[in-house]
Formats: sequence, structure tokens, C-alpha cells
Amino acid sequence: MLLSFVKPVRDVEEVNVFEAFGRVAAEAVRSPRDLPAHHSSHMDGFAVSSSSVEKASADNPVRLKVVGECAPGKQPSIKLGPGEAARILTGGFLPEGADAVIPQEDVVKEDGVVVVRTPVEKMQYVDRRGFDVEAGRELFGKGHVFKASDLALMASLGLRAVRVVRRPRMGMMAVGDELTDSFDEASSGKILNTHAYVVRKLAEASGANVVNLGIVPDNPPAVHEKMVGHSGKFDILVSIAGSSISERDVSSLTARSYEVFVHGLTLQPGRVGGFAVVNGTPLVMLPGLIMSTLNVFMFLAYPCLRRLQGQEPRFYHRRVVARLTEKVGFRKFIDFVKVVWVRLEELEDGLACRPVLGESSGMSIPSRSDGFIITPPGVSDMPRGMDVWVYLPPSL
Amino acid sequence: MLLSFVKPVRDVEEVNVFEAFGRVAAEAVRSPRDLPAHHSSHMDGFAVSSSSVEKASADNPVRLKVVGECAPGKQPSIKLGPGEAARILTGGFLPEGADAVIPQEDVVKEDGVVVVRTPVEKMQYVDRRGFDVEAGRELFGKGHVFKASDLALMASLGLRAVRVVRRPRMGMMAVGDELTDSFDEASSGKILNTHAYVVRKLAEASGANVVNLGIVPDNPPAVHEKMVGHSGKFDILVSIAGSSISERDVSSLTARSYEVFVHGLTLQPGRVGGFAVVNGTPLVMLPGLIMSTLNVFMFLAYPCLRRLQGQEPRFYHRRVVARLTEKVGFRKFIDFVKVVWVRLEELEDGLACRPVLGESSGMSIPSRSDGFIITPPGVSDMPRGMDVWVYLPPSL
Repeated sequence: MLLSFVKPVRDVEEVNVFEAFGRVAAEAVRSPRDLPAHHSSHMDGFAVSSSSVEKASADNPVRLKVVGECAPGKQPSIKLGPGEAARILTGGFLPEGADAVIPQEDVVKEDGVVVVRTPVEKMQYVDRRGFDVEAGRELFGKGHVFKASDLALMASLGLRAVRVVRRPRMGMMAVGDELTDSFDEASSGKILNTHAYVVRKLAEASGANVVNLGIVPDNPPAVHEKMVGHSGKFDILVSIAGSSISERDVSSLTARSYEVFVHGLTLQPGRVGGFAVVNGTPLVMLPGLIMSTLNVFMFLAYPCLRRLQGQEPRFYHRRVVARLTEKVGFRKFIDFVKVVWVRLEELEDGLACRPVLGESSGMSIPSRSDGFIITPPGVSDMPRGMDVWVYLPPSL
Repeated sequence: MLLSFVKPVRDVEEVNVFEAFGRVAAEAVRSPRDLPAHHSSHMDGFAVSSSSVEKASADNPVRLKVVGECAPGKQPSIKLGPGEAARILTGGFLPEGADAVIPQEDVVKEDGVVVVRTPVEKMQYVDRRGFDVEAGRELFGKGHVFKASDLALMASLGLRAVRVVRRPRMGMMAVGDELTDSFDEASSGKILNTHAYVVRKLAEASGANVVNLGIVPDNPPAVHEKMVGHSGKFDILVSIAGSSISERDVSSLTARSYEVFVHGLTLQPGRVGGFAVVNGTPLVMLPGLIMSTLNVFMFLAYPCLRRLQGQEPRFYHRRVVARLTEKVGFRKFIDFVKVVWVRLEELEDGLACRPVLGESSGMSIPSRSDGFIITPPGVSDMPRGMDVWVYLPPSL
């Protein structure tokens, strides 16, 4: 329901194919041609017609005249006649009249001639035209995140530019009189605004262009002014801290007046997370205790960032299965989605995950973790030895 | 044995903690202090002495005078006497005389007074001094790659800078008359040097600082000059293509004269990969067919890059277990380490991996893959449904 307030970014940028690393496809990409464009040699050797050597044997060596060379990338002008062969390099296109390649180590070369002592099968050591990619094939769907080998493939196919989604713009603010960005102030009694750094890196790894709007004091008009003032400039706003229920929780106090306001999630840690819509711009309110910050990021902000980029929304980047090293149990919040961060370890025959326990304020927990597991609503225990999904964030 | 020619980088750089993202620890990092530095409140509420409310009940409400406020980050100057409480915010340090916190929703506030109707346990809602990190604990070992939450943790502990290994300098050249970096030349018969882009991204994701030394023609003196000329300037050299056994395989022809020269690996695809030492600088020779390029990178260059950074050498970034969707079988090179690239898919209860088959020249294979599986020497088949390790590269 909340995602219905998040509209995919419509702006498209056309970028050089080698500048599209990590960018998101704005539309499906189809191959403009076959790859390879012609039958090609898989080896260094000689292009021949299989029929010209079909009677070759140790007793009956066939001598073929070498009439030219086929280098990679060029359509050869040679045409093989009877009794002729062409030198060919790996990746070279087969000349007209050839339908097989004989590796150079299988022939004897004499002056301008190769001596062949065994027949060859049609298409031996030939990479068929289009075997790698056929013209028209969909290479990448809309929403695909380009990796290096994707860009190399597109370049090989002659695609010089690609259309990608403009990065979603995310405005991020931290709320709290106690916060500072200065190490000096932190050493004399304030709290360093480290959550903003972690949230920035997570959002950037999710594809966003993050602008840090700074620290806002515990002052509802100041928070309101910042939220409303920036609402039109960003695709999404994220606030950190101040989302709970006391008189100093000014994020949630302020957001109460917006057109959509949801406060309180059945997510633990993270139950004081919130969501609002400010003049059409979605606002995700992350709580201030680090594990709640991360959980609400993954369960609310991350799906929004995916939706903004035309990707299927979900609350994890990737997931793997691992065996639980110890029992996980809950006595409170049984009906909530309960999140436990874990460290991945290697067993002989697979992965294990070890719960990283501690208070939700524990700054060392994400540092010691790789991902998280979920105990679903209504379930209080996950037994030791159980195989569970471990959900990985895009970065940590 | 080859790794004995690869000497870890000794140079150390001291960088601001927030600039150490993705960098490698040059030494173990220990915590300079406890985190939190003092007993802290887990909630917004009131700091009390548990003994002062031990007789509180609905019939016998205890009234405590609020004598001040404890904000996060500051050691409060307040000392609680009998019958006194202090307002405390989440993260605030407990004042002297307090040993518990009562959440604000559990009390009634009157003018300068809180009314408590239930006793509290000692240390209720208190985050103990050092619960998160104890002074002196090793946070990160030498060779650890810093992620965002590591840097946030160190900053929270007052560590402003961190010592990291200088990035290994990798010089990379592609060998071949047929290669070009120009799309225009590629459309009129040359081959675009896309492998260099993929290798660069892989090496950068492995921590290296990559310098592209360009395309070298199929000319042994030119290759030799480039290799020797750059040998002292880099921690490692990597050549792409020209590593096979014909007269045009000038990487391997040239490297034959160096102080160490290994050519031919029991790795398939990748059997024409090579390793040499040029004036003390290790040189990894990657073959030119893309799947061989990638395999030799992962099995030779990647362990070298890890060793250079003081990390345990291995041939993968991370590995996960997945069920093989179809049988993988070999009729040749049975005694080799046989590498098949696979795509990860999700089943109900775990991951599956689907072999991405094709010739080793298939540019689309890495693009369609997430990682690779191995069929060990002497084994010819891996049955469908088998659980196998899938090895993930640092990037693809």
C-alpha cells in the first residue's frame, strides 16, 4: 500500500556504454546482430573445406595450398577453391568455401602448403555465427543493474550508448540536538552522526544519489521547514532518529500532519519506524537506534528505492541459505517480524549463520554481521541447525 | 609456489576513518575504550535508584522529585539523592545514584515530580558500560576490508584515522594487432578491447589501483619492452591474450626468457594461462578467450592481489551452496580443474545454480552468470540435484 505512493523515476539518461557500470536499464536491451557475426575459428590453425580432406589418412596425406590468412574481426576476401586452405587465427571469420578448422598442431606445414593426414568433421573448431548471441535476443530487462561483463557484451555488439534510469535523488537528514558532525564536539559530549554515513552508503549501494541535508535540531518547526522545503527537490526523503513517541521525537510529531502518515511497524527492532508523504514526496522515518535504523531502511526505504528505479520491490539485495549455529528465541513481540543479524561462516559442506546478539543500540552489531534472518509473526523459536534464508543488504 | 614470488605491499597510508571505505587494514584495530563509555539509557524516561521504588505499588505510589536531565553523550553532573529521579533520554548516561530507567510511558508526570507505581529491577533498560565493545577488544584483523558500519563503529569510538595498506598498483596490457579501443575501428574490422574493461573492474573490486598500459602489437620486442619497462613501477603486471602456443602468442614467447616462467595450467578453460617474474615483478598472463581470461584471473591474479594486500590468498571472493539444475559432464580434460560458470536462481528452500554453457569465447557467458562451480581433477560428472559450492568473483 505504501509503495503506491512511490512513483518510478521517469527521467532517462543516455550514457556511454562503459559509463553505465552499476546503472539501471531504463528499457529492455536487445541484440542488434548475431555474435559472432560470421562463423569464426575457435583455434589458431587452417580453414579448410571438410570435403577436401575426407579421404586424408596417414597413407594418403592431402596437401592443401595456403592461399591467404583470416585475421579476427575482418570478413576475408579469400574464397577457397578445391585443394586450398587459409591460415586462420582464433576469432578469425571463415572464408567462403571453408566449413572447418584444423588446429595448427595437427598439420605439417611446408612451403606454402599444409599436409593433412586425418579427415575433419564439418564445423570442427568453428564457433557458429550467432552461437553466443542471436540478433534480436533480449539481453537485459528493464530494471537490470549493469555489471562490467554486460557492458563488454554490449560494446562487442556495437552498442555505444545505453539508456539508464536517472539515479533517484534521496535527501537525508538526521534529527537531534545531541548530534554533531565534528569529532571535536563529539569528544566533548555530543554524539557523532555516524548513522548518516551508514545510511548514505546503503542508499548509494542501492542506486541512489544521496544529498546529506545535515543535522536538524529537536525543534518541530525546523524539521517541518526542512521536510516541506525539500519535498519537491527529491524523489524520496529519509529522516534518521526522532521517530519514537516522546515529546522530543520530532520527526514523527511533525509528520503527523502530512497527507499520509503511518507510524509503528510490526518489525522488531524497528517498531517505531514510520512513513509519510510530504507534498507528494515519500518520507521514510528511520529510528535512531542503529539496528532499528538498519531494519527500517531495509524493510521500508530499500523497497522504495527499488520501486523508484523500476525494479521489483523487496527488502534484500540477495539471499543465501545457511544453517543456524544456535537457537534463536523470543519472549516478546511474537506477532512481529523479528530480525536477527547474523555472521556467515563456512562449514565443510555449506554456510552457517551465527546470530550477532546485543541491544539494538549496539554499534558493533552491523560491523560483525553479513546479513539478517527473520523469525516470522507467530513463531517464537528457530531451532539450532535449521536451514534459514540469510538476507544480504546491498552494502553494510 | 608461485605466491612465494608475490611480496605483500609494505606501504601504509593513514586515512581519515570515513575515507577508508573498501580499504584494507594494515594492522589489527583494537578498541581504545568501552562503548558505551558509561551505563546508558535504552529508553526515553527517568533514571532512578531501584531501591527508592522497591516498595512502590498501585496502593503505595512513590513520588520522586525530578532534579535534572541527562542528555546523550554528556556525563551528567547530577547526583541522585533519596527520593530523587532524573529525566533521561535514549543514550543518556546514568547519573550517580541511579541504577535503572523507567520508560516515560510507565509513569505519571506531575509538576516536577514522577509518580511510580511498580518496582523496577536493577539495570532495567540500562545499556551497560562496554556491553557493545570492551576496551582493548580486537575489532578488525590485519587484512580486513572496511565496510561502512566498521567505519561508523571506529568513529563512535573516537578513532579519527586508520592505517590501511596502499592499494596494489596493477599494470595491465592487452596484446594483439587485431585489438582497438575505438568503436569506429571496431566497426571496420578490428576487435574492441573489451576484456581490458572487464579485467580492470575485477581488479578494482579486488582492491587494486589499475593502470591501463594500452594495446601492444603482436611484436615480441614491443611486448618485452613494455613488460621490462614497467616491471619496477607496478606491484603486479597482467597481460591479456597472446598466451597460447602459436608464433603469434607473443606474451608467452616473450615471458619465456624471464627469471620465472610457468606456462600451461591444469585449468579448463584456462589451460594456456601463464605466470612469470620480470625483474622481481610478478606477471600473470591471461589467455584471450573471455572464459579463459576470467578463470585465469580468478585462479592466478586474484590470489596474488589478495597476497599483495596481506590477505589469505584464495580464488574466490565469497562462496555459497546451490543445487545443480542439470548434470555437468566432461569427456576431455578429466584430470584438470574444470570450471563451469553458473547463474544463481531461487528455489522455495534454497538456491539453485544453472550452468551457463557455451564456447569459452562466449562474451555473453559472464554476463549471464553469477559465479562458477568446479569439477575436480579425476571427476568427470556432477549429477543433477547435487549441492555444490558456487564461487563468486568480487565483481563481474
